[in-house]
Amino acid sequence: MKDVITVLYDDFETLDVFGPVEVLGTLPDRFNTVFTSLNGGIIKSSQNVPVLTVPFEEPDARTYILLIPGGIGTRLLVKDGVFIDNLRRLADHAEFILTVCTGSILLSKTGMLDGKQATSNKRVFSWTGMESPAVNWVKKARWVKDGNIYTSSGVSAGIDMALGFVADQFGRDTALQIAQTIEYEWHEDPTWDPFAGPG
Amino acid sequence: MKDVITVLYDDFETLDVFGPVEVLGTLPDRFNTVFTSLNGGIIKSSQNVPVLTVPFEEPDARTYILLIPGGIGTRLLVKDGVFIDNLRRLADHAEFILTVCTGSILLSKTGMLDGKQATSNKRVFSWTGMESPAVNWVKKARWVKDGNIYTSSGVSAGIDMALGFVADQFGRDTALQIAQTIEYEWHEDPTWDPFAGPG
Repeated sequence: MKDVITVLYDDFETLDVFGPVEVLGTLPDRFNTVFTSLNGGIIKSSQNVPVLTVPFEEPDARTYILLIPGGIGTRLLVKDGVFIDNLRRLADHAEFILTVCTGSILLSKTGMLDGKQATSNKRVFSWTGMESPAVNWVKKARWVKDGNIYTSSGVSAGIDMALGFVADQFGRDTALQIAQTIEYEWHEDPTWDPFAGPG
Repeated sequence: MKDVITVLYDDFETLDVFGPVEVLGTLPDRFNTVFTSLNGGIIKSSQNVPVLTVPFEEPDARTYILLIPGGIGTRLLVKDGVFIDNLRRLADHAEFILTVCTGSILLSKTGMLDGKQATSNKRVFSWTGMESPAVNWVKKARWVKDGNIYTSSGVSAGIDMALGFVADQFGRDTALQIAQTIEYEWHEDPTWDPFAGPG
């Protein structure tokens, strides 16, 4: 069992987290979901979901997957050096990193996306470039994989990305089985993106 | 602001809850999401999400929407008279009731679905009929509306149903705007159901 360590902060976007958690947590005996925040305790999403978290731990030799959601709370966190430093420590030791929506902007502040391809929410695309111009932001993509880092578009795109991650790790049939179980029409093609703006 | 009172219990299915909560909670200034369980405290989903809940309250004159998720935990609860009695009290006073997946089987045990049309998870359809034969179970439907009760198919179908509920209450354009915001391809037709078995 590998841990999926999900980074929470006040005003995270609900479905950014629980779409991928549903997909990964439904795979039998593969992943153990853990919810963490800078200081631990109850963290509330923008939609008022109160989730119990454990404090950020010093990463050890365990292998784990890091899940970074987006949300309106990122607007403050991109300027929060303590949070970003701690996020970098967690990200440095992750076997894989998955971000949803503006979670990629948080990750970009660690410098770990510099020179890499990544995507984000389509409604804030000018912000992504402003915050982190050294990232090769992909404008039209449901999700993007570069090395061990997966970044997805807004909110529900995280479900498609998580299924894509499962397909890469365990085969396409496993991803299709999960999609069937959760009665979800998987957008299997990472370039499918009707929410990208023109041009 | 109306409350969306979500009934949680151990081993609820993560996305059954947080799909509709994302949709309803994203609508500005309309809904306040509240998480409740029989005795309050931390309740964990099947995917290990720890959510803080308040105990079931005696319903008062407030108008509210009741959201009942499904999940493997329903297998025990259908036999739990105390839980079902309390659920009936909450459901009796709800302005609207929304169920996802096997949440409809919990609601059916209160008798409130007798003679009504409803749907549920497609993988447990024989169980639905066995538990509550007085319900007109609809085999092929993404979601079903009968009076003030909406029931949806498995897991991600709750997102489509919640958007359908928003469309009924506030107009189709509002539902489409939310779908755009959360980058979700809404299945607008409640009869769309590729997950229904043959026949």
